[in-house]
Amino acid sequence: MKTKLPSQSNSHEKSSVFSAVSPATPASLPQAETLREKIGQVVQLEGMVYRVRRMSGFAFVTLRAGNQLFQCVYEREQADFPLSLLEEEAVVRLWGLVRQEPRSRAGFEILLRRCQRLSGPTSPLPASVSGKKLDLGLETLLDLRPLTLRRMEQQAIFRIQAALCQGIREFLQAHEFTEIHTPKITASGAEGGSTLFELNYFGKSAYLAQSPQCYKQAMVGVFPRVYEIGPVFRAEKHNTSRHLNEYVGVDLEMGFLNHYSQLMELETALLQSVFVRLRQLCPEELGLLGVEIPEIGQIPALSFEEAKALLARHGLNRPGSLDLEPQEEKLLCQLSAEETGCELLFVTGHPAAKRPFYAMETPERPEYTESFDLLFRGLEITTGGQRIHEYSAQVEKMERMGLNPADFSSYLAAHRHGLPPHGGLGLGLERLTARLLALPNLRQASLFPRDQQRLTP
Amino acid sequence: MKTKLPSQSNSHEKSSVFSAVSPATPASLPQAETLREKIGQVVQLEGMVYRVRRMSGFAFVTLRAGNQLFQCVYEREQADFPLSLLEEEAVVRLWGLVRQEPRSRAGFEILLRRCQRLSGPTSPLPASVSGKKLDLGLETLLDLRPLTLRRMEQQAIFRIQAALCQGIREFLQAHEFTEIHTPKITASGAEGGSTLFELNYFGKSAYLAQSPQCYKQAMVGVFPRVYEIGPVFRAEKHNTSRHLNEYVGVDLEMGFLNHYSQLMELETALLQSVFVRLRQLCPEELGLLGVEIPEIGQIPALSFEEAKALLARHGLNRPGSLDLEPQEEKLLCQLSAEETGCELLFVTGHPAAKRPFYAMETPERPEYTESFDLLFRGLEITTGGQRIHEYSAQVEKMERMGLNPADFSSYLAAHRHGLPPHGGLGLGLERLTARLLALPNLRQASLFPRDQQRLTP
Repeated sequence: MKTKLPSQSNSHEKSSVFSAVSPATPASLPQAETLREKIGQVVQLEGMVYRVRRMSGFAFVTLRAGNQLFQCVYEREQADFPLSLLEEEAVVRLWGLVRQEPRSRAGFEILLRRCQRLSGPTSPLPASVSGKKLDLGLETLLDLRPLTLRRMEQQAIFRIQAALCQGIREFLQAHEFTEIHTPKITASGAEGGSTLFELNYFGKSAYLAQSPQCYKQAMVGVFPRVYEIGPVFRAEKHNTSRHLNEYVGVDLEMGFLNHYSQLMELETALLQSVFVRLRQLCPEELGLLGVEIPEIGQIPALSFEEAKALLARHGLNRPGSLDLEPQEEKLLCQLSAEETGCELLFVTGHPAAKRPFYAMETPERPEYTESFDLLFRGLEITTGGQRIHEYSAQVEKMERMGLNPADFSSYLAAHRHGLPPHGGLGLGLERLTARLLALPNLRQASLFPRDQQRLTP
Repeated sequence: MKTKLPSQSNSHEKSSVFSAVSPATPASLPQAETLREKIGQVVQLEGMVYRVRRMSGFAFVTLRAGNQLFQCVYEREQADFPLSLLEEEAVVRLWGLVRQEPRSRAGFEILLRRCQRLSGPTSPLPASVSGKKLDLGLETLLDLRPLTLRRMEQQAIFRIQAALCQGIREFLQAHEFTEIHTPKITASGAEGGSTLFELNYFGKSAYLAQSPQCYKQAMVGVFPRVYEIGPVFRAEKHNTSRHLNEYVGVDLEMGFLNHYSQLMELETALLQSVFVRLRQLCPEELGLLGVEIPEIGQIPALSFEEAKALLARHGLNRPGSLDLEPQEEKLLCQLSAEETGCELLFVTGHPAAKRPFYAMETPERPEYTESFDLLFRGLEITTGGQRIHEYSAQVEKMERMGLNPADFSSYLAAHRHGLPPHGGLGLGLERLTARLLALPNLRQASLFPRDQQRLTP
């Protein structure tokens, strides 16, 4: 900070009022591997006390530093501070001797010498973060998020989620998708209907975007392939383990698409690549959660009609129904997994009556659409399909559905100026995370979930 | 699609209802480099007609395919289709012979043979996208976004913006920052005040997040370093070239921070790295816009008080003022650039009266804060600083400011359970883009900007 910048003006040497900031990056976070090389040395570690186990004559102190746990040992005669400094969640700077300890998982432990307490809880913790089990109901777990997220198993969920995003972006960038940022405040909803949150926008009504649908479609007239990972808002009154009112949507759209099966192939390749990357990025976290990430070769697929027929043969018969109920999705996945060994399943060609206005109908049978869902372990994680790209076809379908094209003039501008044939998909990040990690409730895959009852923390 | 999945059940051979989707990725986008290797061959190209220039006896047709322009030549006797198919923005599949042409920028041109029109404009375009200049006022340019973004110079802005995000993420991930997704619907604003958009949340009042501030602070108790790139909402009534009511915030926060100067060093390293990456990722786009990306070595810095004194010496004297006006920021940058050659400038230690409640005050002079802004070519692009991490200190400051700590109990939960010393910064993506590319109005750096008047497209 105190270095002088070399002056660019040659006028005369005068003392400058400017100091200079040099680029510098923070030190690497503590790693067991690095510390193992320091056996016999005294090291300094900053972190938060995770657990204290008093034994006779000493104590085991687990320090959470960086993204790992480190086993420390407190012995009264070795340390120049009282053990009472090391309460759970105390924020400390510790000095200690790294010594070999084959019984420790990392192969070493740290014999504590000095401690500087930097901060800590100001009142007794409402729950212990580091117990064998976090014995809390879901609502309490979520109420106490700023604390309960500190548990290693909880953290692991969100490090895995971050790695999923990283893997998705790496894949999409490698395949020439351009990241876009579309507005979340809109004049009208993408798909219409009653699931919009209304907003006071300088005295006018506005709505939170239910999806980037209309913007990503407009953008395939600009970039051939686009994607966005961002918040999506649905004012759905469902209160189930499978719904959130705000979630993270992974949305992509690509131009010059000939058939929606290309999107299914792309998503198969995407998930295959992302799962491989996840195993590289998060071996510790996956191990901690005891999760096996499926190997994806091919993904089975069947049509909506075939799915309904299969369900009927297995006793789930809802004649004339135009969608899949949760229990139907579950049974389909189960049957498919039994036969194919794959826990993912595409269901294709959904009825037009249950798809939005922009869904392209199958030419030879317009009561169905050029669309697909991807189910994973019984839950829909993706909806995708070919869109209508011709202006006249889109206007005609809107009219047929009783919508007024004039209400969509901003959306239709892209079609009016010419849009390539295109399609895309939306993948729910929390749903992917929850199914992958076998979390029973979607809320567990959201840092700070939002539902009808929950606006805090 | 029609392959069978190998059956996992050994029961008996029966015909499966499941087909199999194999992973496949879309073909690479057309590249001049690839086509140059095909001189003498007939190729197929899909794209949109950018420009048609009729000459005597032939026409130059510029095709926008992938992210590039390709020069094609239409000669009546060579082509089996009429030139009229190739109107501006027509979506076409073209076949043609690649032939050497030293006068073309790419070294070749494509002699057209066949054309299949896939789609196109349904009415005359309200503006020509490919003229020498896009002679439209800003409001018209924005009204016609789905069309005007198709101009190469407009596209380039947003490919550069995507590359900035990619560079930022690569840097932050390499330095062990974990990506988080925090809610945009909140029970109260992060910084309070009148700049909140109010929302009807199932009959209750909720607000759009002005920043992920309180969540990223809570998260430094979980992960040592976090970041988020996401939308931020400000109901500010400013109607200037420097404000948007929705923008993309690049937010980061790190624990175990000893002094905010570490954040300035980090941001210096971040921008240095991102600018290098940008030159690698977007040479074409930077060339098209005629933009030189600054080389960053060190970034000059001066304190708020020094800045005020310097301004006074240069005739801008506002005695007792506690912030910097736009014209002051401009003059500071100009003076700094003249002396140091760097167009970025840190201003440190802003008055506490103008900083939010979570800003840590400088111990020896509590009327100032441990904070900084980063100015770039006259515009503030970043605000950052050390935060209050002690529960009691935060409660005390809130009370001193006339705030009721009970209104912030959710925010304060993280402090109550112990938070490491920490700090962070927020960087406006559109501001960075606009300053880098010398765009006079921030709206030009937002795909679909939102201001008091503008909710569409």
